[in-house]
Amino acid sequence: LVYVCVFLVQAQVLYDFTAEPGNNELTVKEGETVTITNQNIGGGWIEAQNSRGEVGLVPEDYIEVRECGDDFSISSLSHPALCFQCMCLLNLISNASNGNDPWSVWNTDPSGGSNNNWASNPEGTQTGKNAPDPWGSHGHPQAYQGPAEDDEWDDDWDDMKSTGGYVESESGDSGAMQRGGAHATSMKISLNKFPGFSKSGPELYLLCKQFAKGKDKLPIYTGEVGPVWSYPESQLDCIVHFHTNTVNHRYKHFDWLYERLLDKFGSAIPIPSLPDKQVTGRFEEEFIKMRMERLQGWMTRMCRHPVVSSSEVFQLFLTYKDEKDWKMGKRKAEKDETVGVMIFSTIEPEAPDLDLIEVEQKCDQFSRFTKAMDDGVKEILTVGHEHWKRCTGPLPKEYQRIGKAFQNLSTVFTSSGYQGESTLTDALTAAGKTYEDIAQMVAEQPKKDLHFLMETNNEYKGLLGCFPDTIGVHKAAIDKVKEADKLVATSKIAPQDKVTMGKRASTMSYALQAEMNHFHSNRIYDYNRVMQLYLEEQVKFYETIAAKLRQAHSQFTTM
Amino acid sequence: LVYVCVFLVQAQVLYDFTAEPGNNELTVKEGETVTITNQNIGGGWIEAQNSRGEVGLVPEDYIEVRECGDDFSISSLSHPALCFQCMCLLNLISNASNGNDPWSVWNTDPSGGSNNNWASNPEGTQTGKNAPDPWGSHGHPQAYQGPAEDDEWDDDWDDMKSTGGYVESESGDSGAMQRGGAHATSMKISLNKFPGFSKSGPELYLLCKQFAKGKDKLPIYTGEVGPVWSYPESQLDCIVHFHTNTVNHRYKHFDWLYERLLDKFGSAIPIPSLPDKQVTGRFEEEFIKMRMERLQGWMTRMCRHPVVSSSEVFQLFLTYKDEKDWKMGKRKAEKDETVGVMIFSTIEPEAPDLDLIEVEQKCDQFSRFTKAMDDGVKEILTVGHEHWKRCTGPLPKEYQRIGKAFQNLSTVFTSSGYQGESTLTDALTAAGKTYEDIAQMVAEQPKKDLHFLMETNNEYKGLLGCFPDTIGVHKAAIDKVKEADKLVATSKIAPQDKVTMGKRASTMSYALQAEMNHFHSNRIYDYNRVMQLYLEEQVKFYETIAAKLRQAHSQFTTM
Repeated sequence: LVYVCVFLVQAQVLYDFTAEPGNNELTVKEGETVTITNQNIGGGWIEAQNSRGEVGLVPEDYIEVRECGDDFSISSLSHPALCFQCMCLLNLISNASNGNDPWSVWNTDPSGGSNNNWASNPEGTQTGKNAPDPWGSHGHPQAYQGPAEDDEWDDDWDDMKSTGGYVESESGDSGAMQRGGAHATSMKISLNKFPGFSKSGPELYLLCKQFAKGKDKLPIYTGEVGPVWSYPESQLDCIVHFHTNTVNHRYKHFDWLYERLLDKFGSAIPIPSLPDKQVTGRFEEEFIKMRMERLQGWMTRMCRHPVVSSSEVFQLFLTYKDEKDWKMGKRKAEKDETVGVMIFSTIEPEAPDLDLIEVEQKCDQFSRFTKAMDDGVKEILTVGHEHWKRCTGPLPKEYQRIGKAFQNLSTVFTSSGYQGESTLTDALTAAGKTYEDIAQMVAEQPKKDLHFLMETNNEYKGLLGCFPDTIGVHKAAIDKVKEADKLVATSKIAPQDKVTMGKRASTMSYALQAEMNHFHSNRIYDYNRVMQLYLEEQVKFYETIAAKLRQAHSQFTTM
Repeated sequence: LVYVCVFLVQAQVLYDFTAEPGNNELTVKEGETVTITNQNIGGGWIEAQNSRGEVGLVPEDYIEVRECGDDFSISSLSHPALCFQCMCLLNLISNASNGNDPWSVWNTDPSGGSNNNWASNPEGTQTGKNAPDPWGSHGHPQAYQGPAEDDEWDDDWDDMKSTGGYVESESGDSGAMQRGGAHATSMKISLNKFPGFSKSGPELYLLCKQFAKGKDKLPIYTGEVGPVWSYPESQLDCIVHFHTNTVNHRYKHFDWLYERLLDKFGSAIPIPSLPDKQVTGRFEEEFIKMRMERLQGWMTRMCRHPVVSSSEVFQLFLTYKDEKDWKMGKRKAEKDETVGVMIFSTIEPEAPDLDLIEVEQKCDQFSRFTKAMDDGVKEILTVGHEHWKRCTGPLPKEYQRIGKAFQNLSTVFTSSGYQGESTLTDALTAAGKTYEDIAQMVAEQPKKDLHFLMETNNEYKGLLGCFPDTIGVHKAAIDKVKEADKLVATSKIAPQDKVTMGKRASTMSYALQAEMNHFHSNRIYDYNRVMQLYLEEQVKFYETIAAKLRQAHSQFTTM
C-alpha cells in the first residue's frame, strides 16, 4: 500500500509572458510567484497556477524554482494528478503491496499473502504472524546529490556545506526529548527526583487500577529471536516527492504527527526527530533535497514499524478525506489519554511473566548496547566527516596539481625543437589529464557512497538518541517495583498491588524486548544494505581509476 | 663492458666470539670494528676481516652493520671475489656488452656489432656511427627502499625523512659550479665583468693561436636530429654495489674524478654533482642505500655519455691496475691543459660552419628550454614531495580510522545478544581490516612508484643546474665574436682572427647542439621509462585495492 507525500513547488517568474489564446497558456508577470502544478509537460513548458488559482502553461525558462514550500498533499496510488516520475516510483514499489485496502494489512493468515515480496530473514523464519524483515527490495526515490563543490579547496575548510550537512549538532542528540514546543501530555519524566508516587512516573501505569477501554491492543508474540511485535503482512510505504495538484497539508502537520507519536509511543518506541526544518540558505536546492531525503527516511522508518504504522493517528495522517475529517481526527488524537507510560496498558504479551531479575538484566543489556552503538555510530560519523572533507578538498587538489605538473612538463618538452617528441609529449599530456579526471572523480565520489553511509548512521544516531529516555522509563519502573516490599510493609500499597506491579513490569520488559528485536532486525538489514552499496561503489571507483591509468600507460611506447 | 664499484661494508661486533680452531672462524671482541668481506656464506655466518687483516667466519647475529664506508674497489666482470648477487646483476647486463676489450668500443663499423642490445629509436635511425639510444633494458640494482615510516602520522610532519631525501636544497642547484673545494683549473668564469681579454674567458679558445697537440679529438657528426657526438657501439656499464674483497679506492676518488670531468668537459657538457656525501644519521641504512642508488645513477649517466666515458680520466678510474698505475694516471690528468674552454679545441664538427646569427639562435633556444624544463622539473618535485607526505601520513591514517570504526561497530553488534548477527559482523570486521590493509598499501606505495619519478626528476634537476654556466660560456663567446668588428677596427685583433673566432664559435655551437641532442635523446628515453613504470605501478595499486574491496563486498549477503 503506497502513499505519496507531494510537496508544493513554488517558482518566481523571471520574464513577462503573454498567453496565446486557445493554447492553455497562462499569462504571468515578472516577479510574480506561481505554483508548479505539473513539471513534466515537455517541450520546454511547465504547468503552473497563479495566486488567483488560474492554471496554464508557461515556458520553463521563464521561471526559476525558488522554494520547496511547506505545503504538500498526500495522494494514494491511483491519484490522477501524479506525474510520470511519481508513477515510475510507485510502480517499483507497488509490486510489493498487497491490494488496495489499507485495512487488509491485518490479515491474520500466518502464511501471508502470495503477493508478499518481503525478503525472508536468512537466519530462520519466525513462528507466528511476524515477517521479521519488513522492508523488501524497494528502491529509494531520487538520490540526493549532495552539496555543491566549493571552488576554493582548502585544508581548513569547515563550512557546513562540505560536511554534506552531517555536522555533529547537539540538536538531534536526544531525539525525542529535546524537540521543543508543547508536548501535550505527560512525557516529561524527571528521572532523578522520584520522591514517591507521582502522576507522571511509571507508577501511573504500574499501579493504575483500571485501564482505559481501548480497542487497540498491541500483542507481543514469541518469535525465534524472542519477543516480537505483530507485523502486518503488507506494509505501508510512503514516498516523499515534489509536485502537487491540490494542497491540503502543511509541513506543520508533520510536526503535529511527530508530537502525537512521541506522546503515545515514546515510552516504548524510539520516535526520532523530524529532519531540521530551518536550514541555512533554505532556498538552496541541495538543502531542500536533503530535507526531502531525510523526511523520506523518517516516513519510511515510521511505515516500517508495525505499531506506529497501524496507529490511528498515522492512518489519519495518510488517509483523511477532507478538512472535516482531519479536524475531527486531530481533536480525537489530542484527547487520547493512553499516552506516556499508559501505552503499556495496551500491550499484551503472549508469554509467561518475567521475574524482576530478568527484567532488569534485559534492561541493562539494552542500555549497554544502545550506548555502545551510539559511540560506534558517532565514531563513523566523525571519521566519515573528516574523510568527506579530505575527498572534496585537499585530495582532489593534489591530483590536480600532479596532472598539471605532467602537462606543464609536456608543454616544455614540446618546445624542445627536437624531433621525435610527440609520442612522449602526447602521452605525458594524456597522463596529466587523466590525473585531472581522477581529481574530479575523487571530489564527486563521496556523494555516491559515503553519503549513504553517513545518512544511515545519522538516522541511527537519531534513533539511538531516543533510547536513554525510553530506558530511563524502564529503569524507573524497575526501581519502583524493587521498592514494592517496602511499600507493602509501610502499607503504602496492598500485597496484591505488588503482584500487579511485577506483572506490569514484565509487560514493559516484553515491549522493550520486542522493540529491541525490531531495532536489531532493521539494523542488520540497513547496515547490510548500506555496506554493500558503499563497498560496491568503492570497487567501481578504484576500478575506474585503474582503467584510466591503464589507458594512460598504454600511450607510452616501449623503447 | 661492465665494471663494478664495490663498497666496503663495516660492522660493529656486538658480542664476544671465540673462534673454534680449524673452522675458519675469526675471534672478535665486543665493540671491535670489522670489515665484511663476504656476506653470502649462508647458515647464519658471514666472513669478516679485522683491523689486523685477519679473515674468518663470524656469526651474523653477533655483528651489526654500521656504515657503508668510503672504501670501494672496482672489479671487472670476471673478478673471482664477486658475490652471487653481483654475478646475477652482471649476468643481466653482460648480454649487452660487446666483448671484453675495453678499447673495442671504438669499432668504426657503422652497422654496429651483432651483440648490440640497444633499442633503436622508433623515430628513425640516424645515419653515421650513432646509436641514439645508449641505454638498453638494463635492470637497476637493488631498488632503494625509502625512508622508514614514522610512527607519528602528522599533517605537520616536515622531517627530511618523510621527503625521502628529496628536500629542495640549494646545494644541488647549480650543479657543477657550487661544489666546493679546489677547482684545479680555470672553470670560474665571471660573466658579468668582461672588460677585455682575459685568460679565463672564451677568448682563450676563440683566439688561441695554437692548439695543444692532443690525440683525442672529438668528432661531431650530422645525424637525423642534427649535430651529434660520436657514440661507441657498445657502452660502458658500471654497477655500484656493496661487498668487497680488496680495497683500493676511496670515496674521495669519486670526488677527484668529478673534479677532473668538470674541469675538462664542464664548458661543453653538464657534469652533475655527486650525491651528498654527508647525510643526517649516516649510519642509517636507508640513507646509505639512497646514496648508493644515486651514485649508481651518476655513474650510469657518465657511462652513457660518449665523450665522458671514452675520456682518459674515466678510463683510468675504471681500469687502473695498481697503486703505481693510479698515481701516474692521476698526475697526468691533473696536468692536462686542455681544460675549461680549451675543450672546444678538441672538437671537430663534420659540418659546414654556422654563421653567428644561427649560433646565437641555438644558444637562446637551449637557454629557454633548459630554464623552462628546470621549472617544470621543480614543479614535479614539489608536487611529488607533497604527495609523498600525504601518502605516508594523513591519508593512511584516515583509512586506518575508517577501518577501526567499522571494526568497532562490528564489536558492538556482536554484543547485541541478537541471533543472526554473525554474517553481518564478520563481514563488517573483514571490511574494517580491508581498510587497514589499504592504509598500509597507501603508505608503502610511494616507494614503489613515486620514488622513481622523484629520483629521475632529481637527477634532471642536477643536470639542468649545470646548464646556466655552460650556456654562460657560450653567450660570452658569442658576445666576444660580436665585438670582433670593433676589435678589428681598433686593431686589437687581425681580420683573420675575426674569421677564426667565427669558425670557433661555430664549433662551440656544434658542441652545444650535439650535447643538447644527447640530452634530449636521454631525456625522452628516461621519461618514457619512468612514466611507464610509474603508471604501471599505479594501475597495480588501484587494481589491488579494488580487488580487496570486492572481496570485502562479497562477504555481505544479499538480503
